Amino acid sequence: MWQLASNNLNFERLLLEESLFSIGNGYIGTRGCFEEAPELMKNTIRGSYINGYYDRVPILYGESAYGFPTVQDKLPRIMDTQTSMVFLDGEQVVIDASKMKNYFRVLHLKKGLCERRYTYITNSGKEARLIFRRLASFAVNNILCYEVDVEYDGEIEIISLLDSDVSNHSDESDPRVATGHEKLLTLKKLHLKDEIAFCDMEASFAKIPLLCGTKYKLESKVDIEGTLEHCIQDQKISTTAKGRKHLTLQKMCIFVDGIRSKDIYNDVIDIYSRYDRYSFDDFVRLQEEYLSSFWENSDIEIYGSEKVQEAIRFQLFHLLQSVGKDKISNISAKGLTGEGYEGHYFWDTEIYVLPLFQMTQPEFAKQLLLYRFNILPQAKERARQMGHKRGAAYPWRTISGIECSSYFPAGTAQYHINADIAYSFIQFYLYHRDKAFMLESAAEVIFETARIWLEIGHWHKGEYHIDNVTGPDEYTAIVNNNFYTNVMAKYHMYWASRLYSELMDYDQNGFEKLCQRINLDADEINEMKQASEAMFLPYDKELGINEQDDSFLSKELWDFENTTEDKYPLLLHFHPLTIYRYQVLKQADTVLAHFLLEEYSDLETVKKSFDYYEKLTTHDSSLSSCIYGIMASRCGYHDKAYDYFMESVRMDLDDTHGNTKDGLHMANLAGSCLSIINGFAGYRIKENGISIAPTVPKQFEGYRFRIHYLGSWLEIKVQKYIQVKLLCGNSVNITIYDHDYIVNDIIEVERK
Amino acid sequence: MWQLASNNLNFERLLLEESLFSIGNGYIGTRGCFEEAPELMKNTIRGSYINGYYDRVPILYGESAYGFPTVQDKLPRIMDTQTSMVFLDGEQVVIDASKMKNYFRVLHLKKGLCERRYTYITNSGKEARLIFRRLASFAVNNILCYEVDVEYDGEIEIISLLDSDVSNHSDESDPRVATGHEKLLTLKKLHLKDEIAFCDMEASFAKIPLLCGTKYKLESKVDIEGTLEHCIQDQKISTTAKGRKHLTLQKMCIFVDGIRSKDIYNDVIDIYSRYDRYSFDDFVRLQEEYLSSFWENSDIEIYGSEKVQEAIRFQLFHLLQSVGKDKISNISAKGLTGEGYEGHYFWDTEIYVLPLFQMTQPEFAKQLLLYRFNILPQAKERARQMGHKRGAAYPWRTISGIECSSYFPAGTAQYHINADIAYSFIQFYLYHRDKAFMLESAAEVIFETARIWLEIGHWHKGEYHIDNVTGPDEYTAIVNNNFYTNVMAKYHMYWASRLYSELMDYDQNGFEKLCQRINLDADEINEMKQASEAMFLPYDKELGINEQDDSFLSKELWDFENTTEDKYPLLLHFHPLTIYRYQVLKQADTVLAHFLLEEYSDLETVKKSFDYYEKLTTHDSSLSSCIYGIMASRCGYHDKAYDYFMESVRMDLDDTHGNTKDGLHMANLAGSCLSIINGFAGYRIKENGISIAPTVPKQFEGYRFRIHYLGSWLEIKVQKYIQVKLLCGNSVNITIYDHDYIVNDIIEVERK
Repeated sequence: MWQLASNNLNFERLLLEESLFSIGNGYIGTRGCFEEAPELMKNTIRGSYINGYYDRVPILYGESAYGFPTVQDKLPRIMDTQTSMVFLDGEQVVIDASKMKNYFRVLHLKKGLCERRYTYITNSGKEARLIFRRLASFAVNNILCYEVDVEYDGEIEIISLLDSDVSNHSDESDPRVATGHEKLLTLKKLHLKDEIAFCDMEASFAKIPLLCGTKYKLESKVDIEGTLEHCIQDQKISTTAKGRKHLTLQKMCIFVDGIRSKDIYNDVIDIYSRYDRYSFDDFVRLQEEYLSSFWENSDIEIYGSEKVQEAIRFQLFHLLQSVGKDKISNISAKGLTGEGYEGHYFWDTEIYVLPLFQMTQPEFAKQLLLYRFNILPQAKERARQMGHKRGAAYPWRTISGIECSSYFPAGTAQYHINADIAYSFIQFYLYHRDKAFMLESAAEVIFETARIWLEIGHWHKGEYHIDNVTGPDEYTAIVNNNFYTNVMAKYHMYWASRLYSELMDYDQNGFEKLCQRINLDADEINEMKQASEAMFLPYDKELGINEQDDSFLSKELWDFENTTEDKYPLLLHFHPLTIYRYQVLKQADTVLAHFLLEEYSDLETVKKSFDYYEKLTTHDSSLSSCIYGIMASRCGYHDKAYDYFMESVRMDLDDTHGNTKDGLHMANLAGSCLSIINGFAGYRIKENGISIAPTVPKQFEGYRFRIHYLGSWLEIKVQKYIQVKLLCGNSVNITIYDHDYIVNDIIEVERK
Repeated sequence: MWQLASNNLNFERLLLEESLFSIGNGYIGTRGCFEEAPELMKNTIRGSYINGYYDRVPILYGESAYGFPTVQDKLPRIMDTQTSMVFLDGEQVVIDASKMKNYFRVLHLKKGLCERRYTYITNSGKEARLIFRRLASFAVNNILCYEVDVEYDGEIEIISLLDSDVSNHSDESDPRVATGHEKLLTLKKLHLKDEIAFCDMEASFAKIPLLCGTKYKLESKVDIEGTLEHCIQDQKISTTAKGRKHLTLQKMCIFVDGIRSKDIYNDVIDIYSRYDRYSFDDFVRLQEEYLSSFWENSDIEIYGSEKVQEAIRFQLFHLLQSVGKDKISNISAKGLTGEGYEGHYFWDTEIYVLPLFQMTQPEFAKQLLLYRFNILPQAKERARQMGHKRGAAYPWRTISGIECSSYFPAGTAQYHINADIAYSFIQFYLYHRDKAFMLESAAEVIFETARIWLEIGHWHKGEYHIDNVTGPDEYTAIVNNNFYTNVMAKYHMYWASRLYSELMDYDQNGFEKLCQRINLDADEINEMKQASEAMFLPYDKELGINEQDDSFLSKELWDFENTTEDKYPLLLHFHPLTIYRYQVLKQADTVLAHFLLEEYSDLETVKKSFDYYEKLTTHDSSLSSCIYGIMASRCGYHDKAYDYFMESVRMDLDDTHGNTKDGLHMANLAGSCLSIINGFAGYRIKENGISIAPTVPKQFEGYRFRIHYLGSWLEIKVQKYIQVKLLCGNSVNITIYDHDYIVNDIIEVERK
């Protein structure tokens, strides 16, 4: 129940398993490649990554235009520390199922480590037991540890490599993977000092330093023969350990990058000096402590389905492993588990991942929000490049804060990212009412992003219109009055004007200083208020649905009947213009808007819209099925809700999108969890409080999760009865099925 | 009156003059650079080009997508044959106004040559007379001739260079100029044989061979000292001539390319053997013969304005110099006068240049149409790439026929190019009623292009809609029901269905074979007919205008008041998304549709549309002012018509767009001529015949031009009276100011 396990060495699944068995701690991540035979595995993406660390490379255009980004960030594959080749009486251990017995790999969700073990049969028929363990320390983010443990009745030799000759993966046929500029990291120097092996690297174009210092520990139940031998050759440092009968090689790699450190060399030494004496098991103990506290609040318990339980914990664990917690980094589309989408951060964070952390890990949430606050200057600069006189335009995709999208119709045109970010800050406010935080950072982001709506919107016949944007659905681009964008902007500007009053009341002096600094006055706020109130929200009377945009419903319907299975995802088989021409969706758009802001449409419109758009949605985006699942619950389509949930929860485990090899789909990992909390449990947080309206799919018996709200912790358990328990803090008001309750201790309500 | 002259050596204008004084013959073109001091002119685009000859280079995208072109054609700068350095008693002649007297350059429009002469004062105060002449032979397209003539009382040395170390011009800041891949031509071999200097080159990526054989003639009024000395070094062949008192060096360069020739070496030898004895003056005589015949039919005579007369003839001459006449080549946006737009062919040909040649040079017109017929296979292939089951999608920009546009919103999305091409074929049919030609080639193009409307259009509430296209105005992209596109498609499909009947009647057997081959039947034609009849043409009742597209009028108006002069052209100062968001036009769109197909709108709508769109048009495109001029005449706005005409006619001469250095604006050259014929004279050719409705701007007295219509030649002279004269052929019906006349000999009508 607390692990992902595999006892089958299936070569066709290994690339996929590299993603599934990734380890990480939010700072550093390493894919689950094999230590012992790097040369023998043809098909591998042997990557490790540091969150927020980037190279910056030129973007080339066939035809460029004003304001197109000229450079972009890319997540470099960092030096490869994974390799430890094993020799048994001089015979190299190779990956060959016929020579291996009892193969087993496990990702321990409570221990925070990945372990792989098997019995190896040598050419002469002798047997050896090999165990490989690895972890990325949650306690000390800079540390990555490996352990190779070999028992063999004979000579054992382990050769560990630190390989700085790394290149990123590229695939010209898939726009979701990088192309060009594979060599993002360049070796500066390899050297040994005080038994520490140093790889001194830098980002090839951006020249940001990255240092890795590695130290080994050698142990044996019998004797240790000789010492470790180091050798620098061909951009590699190799370290050889020799022994008999039993040998354990522990390898501690300390990574320090030039973004976070001003003295990378000293910082490595410093960390080393503090953790030199820690064994691999010491780090495991630290992991267990950390994870015990994480699971206490973040676990989602499932009753009556082990399969779902495993999957959900797997998802939560991977989110934890990938999320940046230092306001310098965020969580990229594939986390630290692969190179898909070049390691960029998208709105996935705000609309999929953050809602989960807002509920159970407020400190993570705060750090992610502060990341956006930190890149506000770049967003303002980008707004100027886009010709906007005021405000900030957050980048569609980025690492360092600059716009890295070179295809603006499905990038820069997605202005909704401004509202998504604001939405997340507002949600944080709903959870904590932390006006000091609002004043310090959130308000500035909310105001600067809201200004964009006055820049790109305009009045038309008494209504407020926003033209020329792309909504979440990337199969329709550059449209007028995208419902999602308009409704989010409406909410965004409403809150901007509301916060203006609230913060003025809270700390007039402090707030006026902020307003002065960003040159904001009541007139501008009034403009926002009016625009919000008069915001045009497309609605089709005939169909009774919110129209996705001004022209969506007048387009031709996509010919699904004659689109064979092999033509999905459409984006890999049709020109964008062809796709844009039809009523066809890549992912939830209006339906997502109805989830986030159901208060602006009545339930009938929500249902009819769901029915209409569902038929047209390919779910080619991994961001789609979880939202359809949540909204199926909302509409009372319980079977559908379960089906979408299962689609979402199994996406990476079953590789249903066929590209999990490029990394796990972070937004979907979180989306599956939201499918339980926002979907089955019907949980919402709004201005007037929190509410639930639980259902339980007939395929399992119930679930349990926690919520941190206004300083209190609640536990919500849904089985036949709904139990809401106040774990600590003040009493909490909660609405259950439209009835209001006050939770002082425990309340129980019958499930509908 | 028959020349472009300059007697002023203005260094700041030299780059511009390189374009203005270009020579060419439709096959080869050379910019007006200086022979004598290639090293001393810092700011030069020292190019020669061969029409239709291309290199093909990879296109790189930051983010690619399905169906994006992966390679593109580029017009390579070919070997530089221009250089002839002159030494006077060992002192090199340099470009220094203080050392030059009586500087004079002239482009002879009747002699078809460019001449430059001056008196040079050496350091010791001695004077020399230098004359440089050059021509591109109309009689033998492969031949480019130079002559350097020097009189000097002392030692004269001329060193001529053939330089194969050439690279294309690039400017990263201007999307209208190429970037990257400057080295499009690669040297294979330089050698001398039988006194011919051979430069054997090939297109760097496409590997298409190009051979240039050069032979010299040396003459003197006094003695010839010694022979020519050749030397091959550093990718150059230099040839030195020496003499005293007087020396004339003639240089005949023969170019043969691997597209048109199967044996380039033999073809060069063959041409050489036929023209070896021709002196420069012999070629001049051939030019005069050719041009005499050209001017006879193509001249537009202007009464009462020398300035306009000169400009108009300059325009006609440059069109002649750049237009391909061999169905392998076309006329690129900048002709053979520069490298702007990478030498690509656009719809400029069909909508701006061809109407002129249709009238006076039917053979040119036919060759240009056959070029489109020849690239029909590539257009069909492209339609498949775009996901269309039937039909052809002509490339937005190309040389060889493949789509070379890497920015689809203003490229591939301009589906109207299909209709533009069909429009031109139909116009040819209106001029000649040549059903054999229609059956052989035109019909196939018309049908295959018409099929696209059934692919990208659809029925909506009883009307036929075409979604997701970009019209001529590139400041608005990817819209639904662009009026221009829809009206052109309406006309196109009407003609497709009409030709289906007419050709069936003409040659049932032959036509059925064609239909079988392209799998066309009456059902499909009927679909076209219905779609044409039900075509939705956006019309705004309130304003009484045709709306540019479904959403144009609901957009915000561009803030012209706060757009300073230095922000034009907008495309160089604003992101496309920003531009797309507003009611702002780069060029005539609906107004152009009203010019081409006025029969689909009433005059009031035409006028109101003109008034409305004119205010919103920046004329940032060189394709705009001529159309506004023509339609100003149509609307009776005579002062405006004259102003637009003058803007158009002076565009390159005065470099009003600031980029004539990159080549002359071919479409505008033709557009200025159309401004007289279609504008002032109100000439139209329609299904029911030809008509004129002449006006004369008060700034001049009249004009005269010819029309070749249904095998007859008409001359139309407009002064106080309108005189229509039948020069040869059968009598012609013509409508003048809505009255019908039959011209047997001469008719005269009073001018309104």
